[in-house]
Amino acid sequence: MLADLGLEPGRTLVVGVSGGPDSLALLHYLHNLGGHKICPYPLLVASFNHRLRPEAGADVAFVQGIAEELGLPFVTDSADVAAHAEAEGLSLEEAARELRYRFLFRAARENGAQAVAVGHTADDQAETVLMHFLRGAGLSGLKGMPPRIILPVFDAEIPLVRPLLGWTRSQTEAYCRIHGLNPRIDNTNADTAYFRNRLRHELLPELEKYNPQIRQTLAKTALALQGDHDLLNELVEAAWQKTVTHADSDYVEFGRGQLESHSPALRRSLFRKASFLLKPGLRDVDFEALERAATLTPVDLGGGLKTIIEGDVLYLTDDESILPMSFPQVNNQCSVTGNQCDLGNGWFLTCETLNTTYWSLNADPWSAYFDADLTENSPSTGLRTRLRVRPVRSGDRFEPLGMRHQTVKLSDLFVNLKIPKRMRKNWPLVCVDDEIAWVPGLRMAEPFKVTENTRRVIKVQIKK
Amino acid sequence: MLADLGLEPGRTLVVGVSGGPDSLALLHYLHNLGGHKICPYPLLVASFNHRLRPEAGADVAFVQGIAEELGLPFVTDSADVAAHAEAEGLSLEEAARELRYRFLFRAARENGAQAVAVGHTADDQAETVLMHFLRGAGLSGLKGMPPRIILPVFDAEIPLVRPLLGWTRSQTEAYCRIHGLNPRIDNTNADTAYFRNRLRHELLPELEKYNPQIRQTLAKTALALQGDHDLLNELVEAAWQKTVTHADSDYVEFGRGQLESHSPALRRSLFRKASFLLKPGLRDVDFEALERAATLTPVDLGGGLKTIIEGDVLYLTDDESILPMSFPQVNNQCSVTGNQCDLGNGWFLTCETLNTTYWSLNADPWSAYFDADLTENSPSTGLRTRLRVRPVRSGDRFEPLGMRHQTVKLSDLFVNLKIPKRMRKNWPLVCVDDEIAWVPGLRMAEPFKVTENTRRVIKVQIKK
Repeated sequence: MLADLGLEPGRTLVVGVSGGPDSLALLHYLHNLGGHKICPYPLLVASFNHRLRPEAGADVAFVQGIAEELGLPFVTDSADVAAHAEAEGLSLEEAARELRYRFLFRAARENGAQAVAVGHTADDQAETVLMHFLRGAGLSGLKGMPPRIILPVFDAEIPLVRPLLGWTRSQTEAYCRIHGLNPRIDNTNADTAYFRNRLRHELLPELEKYNPQIRQTLAKTALALQGDHDLLNELVEAAWQKTVTHADSDYVEFGRGQLESHSPALRRSLFRKASFLLKPGLRDVDFEALERAATLTPVDLGGGLKTIIEGDVLYLTDDESILPMSFPQVNNQCSVTGNQCDLGNGWFLTCETLNTTYWSLNADPWSAYFDADLTENSPSTGLRTRLRVRPVRSGDRFEPLGMRHQTVKLSDLFVNLKIPKRMRKNWPLVCVDDEIAWVPGLRMAEPFKVTENTRRVIKVQIKK
Repeated sequence: MLADLGLEPGRTLVVGVSGGPDSLALLHYLHNLGGHKICPYPLLVASFNHRLRPEAGADVAFVQGIAEELGLPFVTDSADVAAHAEAEGLSLEEAARELRYRFLFRAARENGAQAVAVGHTADDQAETVLMHFLRGAGLSGLKGMPPRIILPVFDAEIPLVRPLLGWTRSQTEAYCRIHGLNPRIDNTNADTAYFRNRLRHELLPELEKYNPQIRQTLAKTALALQGDHDLLNELVEAAWQKTVTHADSDYVEFGRGQLESHSPALRRSLFRKASFLLKPGLRDVDFEALERAATLTPVDLGGGLKTIIEGDVLYLTDDESILPMSFPQVNNQCSVTGNQCDLGNGWFLTCETLNTTYWSLNADPWSAYFDADLTENSPSTGLRTRLRVRPVRSGDRFEPLGMRHQTVKLSDLFVNLKIPKRMRKNWPLVCVDDEIAWVPGLRMAEPFKVTENTRRVIKVQIKK
């Protein structure tokens, strides 16, 4: 039964024991593994005092007594769960679980343990599945509790294992009776003010009228869905490796061609995974928004997250300003001195005067050829070049190459050429005095072009 | 809303109408699509008389009246649902659905329709999901009803579409009120003897105490799980194409190397798919059996299905005798005449006498070299060859090449060389008189080998 859990003989196992029938049966069962009381895993009994009930201290003492009887080491700790719940805005159950798990994993780390074992049964599994069903969780909720799982919030390497998921609660109770164990009774388990207890004591008996085996059925459902979930994860992970070109807590960058090669269903899953990466606290991502995103159009995914499409790339982020700039950007005007201008971020403008009147069609969008005479003051006036670089001003217009005496709005040019909005304002404009001579990457201006009357040519380039 | 359904304007749509609020709203809504009462799809109204209630005939007449009012063509048919249920061992609901769908798809085929539309709502979806949840269906059940689906039992090409899955039942009722439609009331919908009606009228209101939005929640769950299901199907289908080397209703053959390259979860899904292919009526495949099969050991999957491993191949079948024989098999003894022997099934044994004493190590398991003198009678006794081929007899022993004066049991040889059990009994043995000279494919016998004293060599081959 313990084969699936991936435990290694000889390495310590922390067993979380409350003193109730499930965890007591777990401890006793593990201790007697291999017969003749030689458990292949050195056990460390750990019991946490939640201080939620007057008997809490006595429960811990009881577990300590059992550990002594079995000759096993014992650790304990306590915390004010109610205060933690209050401070963190958690339910009592959530706060108790968080503090208990922190304690168990700390004990595991401090003792070099291979895993933390807890006593969840098939009944707990059925309740978990039902709870997620009622709340509308998808596959990841409906699959219930896996027998072995890493919980990164508690420890990145030590897994939580659940050896008793195949046992029903009545089996653990019977086990305790047979072995003369007298588990402690936790009265809060009967308190139907807790959502889980209402499921256990009210809803599940109601569901048994429709399926008398409902608990076993739900435990089986969990098992089957875990298989499906594993498989999906595998697929999405493989596609992620191929499709995602950058991922950190700020943004995820997808290759658009790769995305297009995937099915819409796979794209949805990739966007969902990316959403959880960017917003770890996210409860769920709206399915319909994911469906729209899967059509590869810009979409608001909720929680501030958006998909942004730029060229060959699709970004998912909640902060557009943080995305990488694949184009040069300038904040202030800067003059060209010494045939060069530092645009910042590793980008430079360079000028070169060519003693030739020969020119051919220029296919490189990041270089331009001007009639040098038109870009210079007469030699007598000191500084010769009139070239400067500045960002866009509202209302900017210019006369694109080939459009004699007609100007267009720069903003229209950006729209027509699908330049991402966020890059427009600081797009570098190469100007002669204040007149736009070249929109690097996009278009030259007609007035500055090389003609048959040109005597000298100046080549301007923008490079990283 | 109809975009997802993949409908093409201009092509006929059969609308199944009972006269209740859902199907009536569907019909009216479709008819008014595009405004000004010009529906892009020519509609054909179809109403089936289940003859289960006294008012059944009046319901059909009511639908016919509506169709006439709207100026739409109308078709109807009826059948004795109760008799069909009795004859086929179906519930009344199952029998009604089967006969109704048969009628709707027949109408679609006869009228060249592109699809059959029915009025299932989000409430129906929630009930379906809940029903599958209680019964323990896996993902394929929990995903509920898809908006568009091919149901091969009714038609291989015409899909069923459900345009109203996004509407709640109270929305269809409101729609009917607003448009002055007076839907017929089906009293059997209130009859809690039907499982579905118990869910609708008793269990769902109970679940609303835990989640007031439970119907919408479950409809959303269905949608999300459909996405997961699509994705899994895609993955499994791709793996199937790579892994399955033969599939018919008798057996499925998997490449073992390919299976080994997949994760256990993917293997499970492939075996599940194969199981449903071999046993279309199967309700489910036991998850634990699938898990064992995924370890690639021979396993009983239930329902008579077994995995059988032979060499590079894994079979799934319920009838081992039907599997292909990749080795020659013989039923009776046969003599070699004219240097040849027909073993059946396209296999032949051929003999060739070589006038050479030269021989080298023979790497071909399907040919053997004997000392010819040891396999022949003296020329005076008529028939020269003493070679014959026969199947295995219990207790057969022989002296393998290299084991001087020691015999081994043939059955041990088969076990050691992992010859599939089903092939052992009729394995062809090449004998001299009755003594085994060669177990083709496996071992020669020591006594008949070519030695330095050999004068003539006989080469025996088994070929297809």
